[in-house]
Amino acid sequence: MRVLLVGAGGVGTAVTRIAARRTFFETMVVADYDPARSAAAVAALDGDGRFLAERVDAGDEAAVTALLARHGCDVLLNATDPRFVMPLFRAARAAGATYVDMAMSLSRPHAERPYEECGVKLGDEQFAEAGAWEEAGALALVGMGVEPGLSDVFARYAADELFDEIEEIGVRDGANLTVDGLDFAPSFSIWTTIEECLNPPVVYEAERGWYTTEPFSEPEVFDFPEGIGPVECVNVEHEEVLLVPRWVGARRVTFKYGLGQEFIDTLRTLHRLGLDGTDPVTVPGADGPVRVSPRDVVAACLPDPATLGERMHGKTCAGTWVRGVRDGAPREVYLYHVVDNQWSMAEYGSQAVVWQTAVNPVVALELLATRAWEGAGVLGPEAFPARPFLDLLTAYGSPWGMREQ
Amino acid sequence: MRVLLVGAGGVGTAVTRIAARRTFFETMVVADYDPARSAAAVAALDGDGRFLAERVDAGDEAAVTALLARHGCDVLLNATDPRFVMPLFRAARAAGATYVDMAMSLSRPHAERPYEECGVKLGDEQFAEAGAWEEAGALALVGMGVEPGLSDVFARYAADELFDEIEEIGVRDGANLTVDGLDFAPSFSIWTTIEECLNPPVVYEAERGWYTTEPFSEPEVFDFPEGIGPVECVNVEHEEVLLVPRWVGARRVTFKYGLGQEFIDTLRTLHRLGLDGTDPVTVPGADGPVRVSPRDVVAACLPDPATLGERMHGKTCAGTWVRGVRDGAPREVYLYHVVDNQWSMAEYGSQAVVWQTAVNPVVALELLATRAWEGAGVLGPEAFPARPFLDLLTAYGSPWGMREQ
Repeated sequence: MRVLLVGAGGVGTAVTRIAARRTFFETMVVADYDPARSAAAVAALDGDGRFLAERVDAGDEAAVTALLARHGCDVLLNATDPRFVMPLFRAARAAGATYVDMAMSLSRPHAERPYEECGVKLGDEQFAEAGAWEEAGALALVGMGVEPGLSDVFARYAADELFDEIEEIGVRDGANLTVDGLDFAPSFSIWTTIEECLNPPVVYEAERGWYTTEPFSEPEVFDFPEGIGPVECVNVEHEEVLLVPRWVGARRVTFKYGLGQEFIDTLRTLHRLGLDGTDPVTVPGADGPVRVSPRDVVAACLPDPATLGERMHGKTCAGTWVRGVRDGAPREVYLYHVVDNQWSMAEYGSQAVVWQTAVNPVVALELLATRAWEGAGVLGPEAFPARPFLDLLTAYGSPWGMREQ
Repeated sequence: MRVLLVGAGGVGTAVTRIAARRTFFETMVVADYDPARSAAAVAALDGDGRFLAERVDAGDEAAVTALLARHGCDVLLNATDPRFVMPLFRAARAAGATYVDMAMSLSRPHAERPYEECGVKLGDEQFAEAGAWEEAGALALVGMGVEPGLSDVFARYAADELFDEIEEIGVRDGANLTVDGLDFAPSFSIWTTIEECLNPPVVYEAERGWYTTEPFSEPEVFDFPEGIGPVECVNVEHEEVLLVPRWVGARRVTFKYGLGQEFIDTLRTLHRLGLDGTDPVTVPGADGPVRVSPRDVVAACLPDPATLGERMHGKTCAGTWVRGVRDGAPREVYLYHVVDNQWSMAEYGSQAVVWQTAVNPVVALELLATRAWEGAGVLGPEAFPARPFLDLLTAYGSPWGMREQ
């Protein structure tokens, strides 16, 4: 397998560190808009000749297609922010490569009833092109990070092995991470966090289909395992709600993020002030007025989450809570994966949230390389058998857990 | 009198509308960095030939000096934001003109103990040059808006006519303004509001001199008159605390701003995220990276407060609460000035806070023109007799009030 990894930020760099310990691929070309970032990621791998650094603009579809061809890559792994999903997805198709991402094409709220009806949903643009992928016998494996990704694998595992009927599948994400000396330090890309949290959350119900609510709706306190404890969780727009119902039967699917009240208040304030926006505003620059996106300025004022690992303490938990019936009796389980920041820093030099996102697409690439996973079309992780994935994740030194509620 | 008004924003434009109804001056040159703003302010005055529009960079001291000379102006009225105090103050001195402003040179926190000791205080840079003004027999009348300004006049009035001894002088500012359709709409320049509210508040005590506290310290609920009612007020850095003790005897001087809890929380969040900062950050621009000041971006995302008058409802109150002794008995009064937005919009087309700031320097200019106020050096409003000011303000159609507590 020859892989083009696009994006050498926190997650992309962690992908290289995890993949470097595996033998399933021959080459991984690491490409970034900033050539210093791809060079640094490759340089850190102690001369592993399978890795090469390149520069590419992820928004330039033709340049990405050419780069795939030049290196004879058969897989493109997208580790950029979701704005670049569509050009990379199309570049992979044009080059005849398999495509893997960790977040799907962006949504647009319903023009008149944004908090009741879906407009353009997450992934809609990708699924609209599914026919072309199927006809070509080509695979786009979408939403293959930790959430979406591992959370979808858990949903499939529950359906296959734990339940006869499923009432509700609720992805629940929570952490007890803190950063020394910083009052406010998101542990993941603030650009993506704002996008997820301020868009209308989407919910699936079998009778009603997909619909939206007000941001931060249906707050609940979820008790996370391994010492993290109870965290206030709210509905957030997330790919699992769009992916799971396509392949797994469930009456209701939700995603709730354990943001905590302070973080919710901060996001609400950014929204109230218009600082979450991506449309440019005009401000004074050194040589006259310039136009900038407020959300980019928010990101520039905050520390890069990938650089905070040394000062971070605590654990992050991704998981899927499932309620239903087994052998005629009610059953409720939480399938989860916890990463301790101290462990991920010591083992890989990557902070916990970034590492947890990165490990899952590497496991998936290995399953594709060994043909344990095969398919054609635009498919989510729950379209594939779950057991090989969970076993290989454990073999990577990062076991998952299950709690009967 | 020939006046150079620098700054044709909300306050500057209101100055022209108020001055246009008076006869004490021959010429008012209206100059702004944006020539469209000065032209619009002059054009709105229905052909009053005393007003002329010019373009000037308020940071370019030599250009301002030349403009004063070219038009033979004997007074410079500064209606820009406080970053331009020093170049305009020096340009006036260089041109031999009287200088009037509504905010004083900026402070810098104490390097080691910012929330206990003063560093560079508001106005320190101006007072450092007081000798040169005195020797030249020239006048810089500083802090001559509403707060500072009218609030200082009230302090002097209390000392002269209402008290034998003063224990405490506390400026208290509160409003019940709302803006239709907007959750968050500061009624005054957000740049200045952030500067005032997030700098360490300064307090004066006779035994201790000036000292600072944590932001938002000593919360109290103050009951404002004319239907505004109780508002939560907190200590804020403001010029009155630096000006009043120089000319008026009082054991303690404070300034508290009726911000309300939501506004305080918003400012705290901006600070926590670094979005209150003025040092540039690097963000993507249309043609590559650009450097912008986060606080300018916050301002650009919010509506210009001067444009909100039509959608604003309510009243704003500026005033000075004084506690002391008269004829051997304790006394407590609140001297205040309330502007109803509906009235200021109908009469002048200016929103209440902007109009209230603008009327006071026009009254002061008229007192200087008629020689009711005379002096040399760098002087605050409390250095002059209060009664003529308060009478003329009433003659402008905007009476003040007094409440015995």
